Amino acid sequence: MEKNFWLTSEPIEINDVISKVVRPEAGAINTFIGTVREFTKDKRTLYLEYQAYVPMAEKKLQEIAEEIEVKWKDTKTAIAHRTGRLEISEVAVAIAVSTPHRKDAFEASRYAIERIKEIVPIWKKEHWEDGALWIGDQKETKSYKEQLPTKEE
Amino acid sequence: MEKNFWLTSEPIEINDVISKVVRPEAGAINTFIGTVREFTKDKRTLYLEYQAYVPMAEKKLQEIAEEIEVKWKDTKTAIAHRTGRLEISEVAVAIAVSTPHRKDAFEASRYAIERIKEIVPIWKKEHWEDGALWIGDQKETKSYKEQLPTKEE
Repeated sequence: MEKNFWLTSEPIEINDVISKVVRPEAGAINTFIGTVREFTKDKRTLYLEYQAYVPMAEKKLQEIAEEIEVKWKDTKTAIAHRTGRLEISEVAVAIAVSTPHRKDAFEASRYAIERIKEIVPIWKKEHWEDGALWIGDQKETKSYKEQLPTKEE
Repeated sequence: MEKNFWLTSEPIEINDVISKVVRPEAGAINTFIGTVREFTKDKRTLYLEYQAYVPMAEKKLQEIAEEIEVKWKDTKTAIAHRTGRLEISEVAVAIAVSTPHRKDAFEASRYAIERIKEIVPIWKKEHWEDGALWIGDQKETKSYKEQLPTKEE
């Protein structure tokens, strides 16, 4: 079965994501790519690490696509998210949404990245020059000092 | 010199466009891809044809990027547009904008496609089962029955 929502420890090929949503009914494809940024204000990131509960994360990505199908007419969505260690400028997440007309493609793609950060169980560890921290949730409103939260949390 | 704004009669490789905007300062890349849609309401398109005043079109694409740099902080933009005959689902235009944060990437990419349709001298000929028509302007508010407008028009 074709998999349109997946986590991978290998580099994400953007074309693999886009090609899943190309279709004759679509005139617009919006793609959002999240890459590893080196500087946040003056703080320099050396690399990132992502960990995920993979089956749950893939299920949640699919749920987001189903939400999009309800909110916008005639969409097709594909999403890939990296796990493991990522260097600067590497692709952390790639979203592609195809629609007949462009307005919907932009809106749905934006919705997808916001929802990923809200509901998909993926944790990010930032490695800086002077230390490292697990970011508690993808909206970055809390953090964990030493380790991943337990499943019970 | 690296060319970030170009017209081409060859198929557009999305990665060629995206790779021009990847950089350590960016955490977000938004890509908009316009593809040839088969059906508009019940009317079936067989293929499209684009003609352009190439040097002027490339200059206008660059102008759009400069407008974006003024409107949003710290952006990098690349745009490729096809000319010639395009089959269903082929890429007509690809835009990539990278920014530190995602909100700006979405907004600037949306701005770019709207401006392309407003100011870039590219004409589209729709070929349907029962005829063909040059679309007069990219906003599709006027059409030319038989032929391209003259330069004087």
